[in-house]
Amino acid sequence: MPKPKKQPRPKAQTPKGFRDYFGAEVARRQSMLSEIARVYRLYGFDALETSAVETVEALGKFLPDVDRPNEGVFAWEEDGDWLALRYDMTAPLARVAAQYRNDLPSPYRRYAMGPVWRNEKPGPGRFRQFYQCDADTVGSASMAADAEICAMLADTLEAVGIARGDYVVRVNNRKVLNGVLEVAGLAGDDNADRRGIVLRAIDKLDRLGEDGVRALLGEGRKDASGDFTRGAGLDDAAAETVLGFTAARRGSGRETLDRLTELVGDSAVGAEGVAELAEIAALLGAQGYGPDRIVIDPGVVRGLGYYTGPVYEAELTFEIAGEDGRPRSFGSVAGGGRYDDLVKRFTGQEVPATGVSIGVDRLLAALTAQGRFTDADDGPVVVTVMDRDRMADYQAMAAELRNSDIRAEVYLGNPRNFGNQLKYADKRGAPIAIIQGEDEAARGVVQIKDLKLGARLAAELTHEEWRDQPAQVECPRADMVAEIRKRLG
Amino acid sequence: MPKPKKQPRPKAQTPKGFRDYFGAEVARRQSMLSEIARVYRLYGFDALETSAVETVEALGKFLPDVDRPNEGVFAWEEDGDWLALRYDMTAPLARVAAQYRNDLPSPYRRYAMGPVWRNEKPGPGRFRQFYQCDADTVGSASMAADAEICAMLADTLEAVGIARGDYVVRVNNRKVLNGVLEVAGLAGDDNADRRGIVLRAIDKLDRLGEDGVRALLGEGRKDASGDFTRGAGLDDAAAETVLGFTAARRGSGRETLDRLTELVGDSAVGAEGVAELAEIAALLGAQGYGPDRIVIDPGVVRGLGYYTGPVYEAELTFEIAGEDGRPRSFGSVAGGGRYDDLVKRFTGQEVPATGVSIGVDRLLAALTAQGRFTDADDGPVVVTVMDRDRMADYQAMAAELRNSDIRAEVYLGNPRNFGNQLKYADKRGAPIAIIQGEDEAARGVVQIKDLKLGARLAAELTHEEWRDQPAQVECPRADMVAEIRKRLG
Repeated sequence: MPKPKKQPRPKAQTPKGFRDYFGAEVARRQSMLSEIARVYRLYGFDALETSAVETVEALGKFLPDVDRPNEGVFAWEEDGDWLALRYDMTAPLARVAAQYRNDLPSPYRRYAMGPVWRNEKPGPGRFRQFYQCDADTVGSASMAADAEICAMLADTLEAVGIARGDYVVRVNNRKVLNGVLEVAGLAGDDNADRRGIVLRAIDKLDRLGEDGVRALLGEGRKDASGDFTRGAGLDDAAAETVLGFTAARRGSGRETLDRLTELVGDSAVGAEGVAELAEIAALLGAQGYGPDRIVIDPGVVRGLGYYTGPVYEAELTFEIAGEDGRPRSFGSVAGGGRYDDLVKRFTGQEVPATGVSIGVDRLLAALTAQGRFTDADDGPVVVTVMDRDRMADYQAMAAELRNSDIRAEVYLGNPRNFGNQLKYADKRGAPIAIIQGEDEAARGVVQIKDLKLGARLAAELTHEEWRDQPAQVECPRADMVAEIRKRLG
Repeated sequence: MPKPKKQPRPKAQTPKGFRDYFGAEVARRQSMLSEIARVYRLYGFDALETSAVETVEALGKFLPDVDRPNEGVFAWEEDGDWLALRYDMTAPLARVAAQYRNDLPSPYRRYAMGPVWRNEKPGPGRFRQFYQCDADTVGSASMAADAEICAMLADTLEAVGIARGDYVVRVNNRKVLNGVLEVAGLAGDDNADRRGIVLRAIDKLDRLGEDGVRALLGEGRKDASGDFTRGAGLDDAAAETVLGFTAARRGSGRETLDRLTELVGDSAVGAEGVAELAEIAALLGAQGYGPDRIVIDPGVVRGLGYYTGPVYEAELTFEIAGEDGRPRSFGSVAGGGRYDDLVKRFTGQEVPATGVSIGVDRLLAALTAQGRFTDADDGPVVVTVMDRDRMADYQAMAAELRNSDIRAEVYLGNPRNFGNQLKYADKRGAPIAIIQGEDEAARGVVQIKDLKLGARLAAELTHEEWRDQPAQVECPRADMVAEIRKRLG
C-alpha cells in the first residue's frame, strides 16, 4: 500500500482584508449598537434583519457579467443563480420594501445593524467586512420625515456619549444645487455630462480646496502627477455661482436661506429645495434643535450626486491629532438623505424614502479618542489554584463573586507553577487574584492580591517602599466578597 | 440610435433557504443574546468576533475539490484563493487559537455569537443562515473546565427565563463508550470500521428505538423502504453490553457510576471515562448543582462520534404539542463536549478544548412556546395628524413621550384620510393613538384613543354597550404624558 502523502499544514490566517475582534472591542461595539437601537426604537423604528446573502439580481447595482460578475461584491454561482454578500443595508431594504409591500405599514420606519462586505482592495484601516447601522423611513414624502431623522441622529450621538457641542448635524439639499446649476446655464438633457462633472468636482471640495474645484468647474485641472482632468467648461461667473452655493452658509439659518434664495434666482426646483430646507429648519427649531446641534449648511457636498432632496451629515467637531500631528476636527461619522427611487427597480413605482447610515467603526474610534473606554472592561477576578484537590472550594469562591455580579474565574491551566498563574492573571487584565493555600484554608482566610494597585505602586514607589506596602491583604474567607467589592469600587 | 432594450424587472425575493426577520423577532433574539453574553462574561469568557469569511483552507473540513469545492459551504474563488462563509463557530476558533497562540491567555475562555451559513437543502424551518452562540475553553485538560461549562449552561438557561425544573443538563463520556466497546470485543485498529457502525447506530437511538439499534449492532437492519443497512456483527451478549451502556442511568449519580464501572470491566480507558464523570459530578455537587439541574446520563448519544471525552446536552423537559398533537418534551437546545485536536491541523500540537453551542433559534422557540413574549413589544404610541400645518406640535408630543421613555411616532403618510391613519396605527400594533384637531388645540386638550382597550371592548361588548364606553378620553394637553403612562401601566 502506498504511504499516504503528507498534507502540508493549512495556514492559520484570516483572508486578506478581514480581521478578528477580541473581548472589549466586541463588547463596546455591542453596547453602542444596543444604545443606538434603543433610541431608534423610541422613535418608532422597527428592527429588520435581512440575510447576509442576496441574489445579485436583487442587489442590482452590480449586474451579472460573464467575465467578472462580482466587481465590488463577493459573489458566487449557486445552482445557476448568482448570490452575493450584501454591500450595504439600503439594497436589502429596497428588496424588502418591494417584497413585502402589501404587508408592511406605510410609512415604514426600519433600522438595521450588522456587517456588510465589500470586495475592494484592502488598505490600512480599510477592511472588507465592516458594520453599518442604518435608519430609514420608506413611503413618506414629508419633510417631517427628514427632520425627524436629523433630530434622531443628534439624540443618538448624545445617547452614545458624544457631548452636545462636540457634534453638529449639517443639512443641505440637492434640489438647491439643481437650481444653482440651472442658473449657471447647465439645465436640460444636453448638459447631463457637464452636470456630472460639476457634481464630481464639488464632491472633491474637501480634498482639492476651492481653487482646485474652480479649475474643474472651468477648463480643467492638472494634478501633481501631471494627469489632466477635463472641466465642466463653465465661465467664471457661472463657476462663482456654483462655488457660491457651497460657501453659502451664513451666521444664521435665516440668512443662509436668504443667500440660497438669491443664488437659485427664478429656478423652480431651486426654490423648492430652499423651501424644503426652510421647512426642516422650522420643524427642528420648534422642537428645540437649535444651530448648536443642527444647521443648514450648503457646504455638505458628500452624497449630493446620489440623493434627490435633503442631504445630511453628522460631524464630530472636537479635535484629535491628525496624521501630521497637527490637530484637526474628527470629522464625519454619519450621513444620509432622501432618495425617491428605492423600490422602482422592482415594482416600477416611485416610493419616497429618506434615511441615515452611522459609521459604527468611526463612531467607536471617536469615543475611544475621547477616552471613554479607559476604565471599562476590566478582566475577571482570578481565583488561583494552590491545591488541585480543592478545585470545588475555588469554584465556590468564583461562584460567590459571580452571584454578587463580579466577573470571576478559576485558573484552569496546570497549577504546578504559581508564577504562571500570576502571569495568566496579568494577561487577563485581572484586577485581583485570590490565593488560598493549605495554611490559609486551615485558618479560614484568603489572600487578596490587588494587581491593579500593585502595578501602580510598582510604578510609583521605590523597591524599598514597595516592599513595605505590598498590595496584598489577608482577610477572613467570609469577608472575601465584601473586601473585593470595596477594592473594585 | 437604437432604442435601449427594456430590462426585465428584478425579482424582489430572498435567495432560496434564506429569510428576513422583522421587529420583535430581532429584538427578542438580541435581548436573549445579550443576556447569554452577560452570563458568559461573568464566568470570565471573553468575546471573539471573527469575520464571516474564512479561507477554505483554514476551515478545513471541506477540502477544495476541482469539481465542487463548496460541498456543504458557500464558497467562491477570489484572486486564486478559495474563500467561504463559516459553517460553525468552532472552525474559526481553531484558526484563531493557532494564529494568536503566542498572544492569547492560556487557558483561553471565549464566547462567540452570530450567524453561520450552511449550503444544504433548505426545508420547513431549516434555513441556510442561522445563529449559533458558543462558549469554549481552549488549553485546559481539567475536568473543572467541563464542569464549569455545564454549570454555566444551567445558569444561562435560567438567566434567559427557563425555570429550574424545566431543563436538565445531561452529561456522558466518550471514553466510557470506548471502554464498553473494548469489552464488546471491538478494540484494536482492525475494528475501526465496526466501531464506526456502532457509533452511528447509537446515534440513531432516538429515531430507531432500542430494537432498531440492536439490529444495527448485530447483523443489520432493513428499513421500511426495504433498504438494508449492514450491522456491526456483534453477538447478542456484546450487543446487550453496548445497549446496556446507553441504558445505564440509575436513580442517583452514584448508582449510575457504579453501573458504568461494571460495564467497562477492566478497560483502562473505560475506567478513565468513569473517573472523569465522577470528578465532574463531585465538582458540580460541591457547588450545589444537584440532579435537578445536571445529571450523569449515558443516554446522551448525540456527538459521541465527534467528541473525545465528556459530552453534554441541555434538554428542555416541559411539554409542547408534537406534530401529531400529542404532548412531547421540547427537547435539546444546546450541546457540547471535549475535543482535543482543535489546533492540531495548524500547528501539529495537541491542544485540549471543551465547549458548548446553544441553538439560539431553538431556545427562542422554547421561550415563545412558554408564552414569554405575549405582552412585550407593543408598537409605539401614534400621534395622528389632523392639521398638516401643525407638524411641529405633533412632533413635540412624540418627543415628550420619548423623553418619558415611551415609544412614540408621528404619522408621516398623507394625512388627508384619517381612517388610513387609524389603520396604520393598527398595523403598527400601537396601544394608543393621540388626536388633536383645531378644536382640541384651541381648548388645550388632546383625545387619547386607547386602541388596545378598544379592541378588547369591541370583542367583549355588544355594539350598544360599546358605544356608551368608547375607549377614547379627552385630557388636558399638559396631562397627556401622565394619562398615557397610566394607561400603558
